[in-house]
Amino acid sequence: MKRTSFANWPCSIARTMDLLGDWWTPLVLREAFYGIRRFDEFQQELGIARKTLSERLRRLVEADLLEKRIYETTPIRYEYLLTDSGRDFFHVLLAMTAWGDRWLSGEGGVPVIAHHTTCGHDAEAKVVCSHCDQPMDWDNVTCRPGLGYPAKLLTRPAVRRRFHLDDPVAESAGPAA
Amino acid sequence: MKRTSFANWPCSIARTMDLLGDWWTPLVLREAFYGIRRFDEFQQELGIARKTLSERLRRLVEADLLEKRIYETTPIRYEYLLTDSGRDFFHVLLAMTAWGDRWLSGEGGVPVIAHHTTCGHDAEAKVVCSHCDQPMDWDNVTCRPGLGYPAKLLTRPAVRRRFHLDDPVAESAGPAA
Repeated sequence: MKRTSFANWPCSIARTMDLLGDWWTPLVLREAFYGIRRFDEFQQELGIARKTLSERLRRLVEADLLEKRIYETTPIRYEYLLTDSGRDFFHVLLAMTAWGDRWLSGEGGVPVIAHHTTCGHDAEAKVVCSHCDQPMDWDNVTCRPGLGYPAKLLTRPAVRRRFHLDDPVAESAGPAA
Repeated sequence: MKRTSFANWPCSIARTMDLLGDWWTPLVLREAFYGIRRFDEFQQELGIARKTLSERLRRLVEADLLEKRIYETTPIRYEYLLTDSGRDFFHVLLAMTAWGDRWLSGEGGVPVIAHHTTCGHDAEAKVVCSHCDQPMDWDNVTCRPGLGYPAKLLTRPAVRRRFHLDDPVAESAGPAA
């Protein structure tokens, strides 16, 4: 089945998803965060088919989330190390974990507890604003096209509606003119 | 092709991914955050096949991220509204967006800018600790099994290794005994 490609959508969610390819990929990254580096270890930890794992690792190396490095020369053996981009993806996994912990744990409790060594407490991730450090939530974030949004799409009615481009601009508080 | 089910893994990442099913699902949720509620609007905005959309919406209703509600009675028409769990998923999308903006935007700039109405600034999401508000990163978070982790798995060598269960406990700072 041909998969829809999201790579060229002007949307970082779609692009991220296109890059990851499928749900195995975040689990491969999860293992990397647990310290796994070698093919056979990834394979054993995940119980993933070797062919699938091989393809996912190749994808992650191509996309520069993992670096493939020789760790033994006779015979040549490789290990897979997280790059800066790969390590940064930990934040996505943390946000996903926090959501899953809250909504999918059931009565048994959370499966895995995260401990923040910076402060020495068990904690969960929360998502806040890089400017004011207050929570960013569905009802306090608005979106508008950035420089990377294709200009030609901005004439489409659906796009203009999505970003409220034709709405009257809200006046700042003050007496009506 | 039979898809591996991650639903019963003791891992909130795996469970979240199993629930979402495929990459269309976060995009359906993204549209819901843009204010889309009706089948035809989802369909037009995403250019998704009607059958695929129908299946993804059904999944999201079953999983309680969306609520299906009648908005017209003759003929009966439904709309899809975000539930509390669905709205909370916005945090996962924000974390994904921040990562994609950083690593996949290229020279064109970010496709979409987020504006935080709480503080009135354009901003990106960052992932911090619920206890101390400091960043949670790959090198300052450790994991251990929680109450929801199946006890029978804790005897497996791979699991014990993953969580460092057999490592000597680090002594707090002080003179060696």
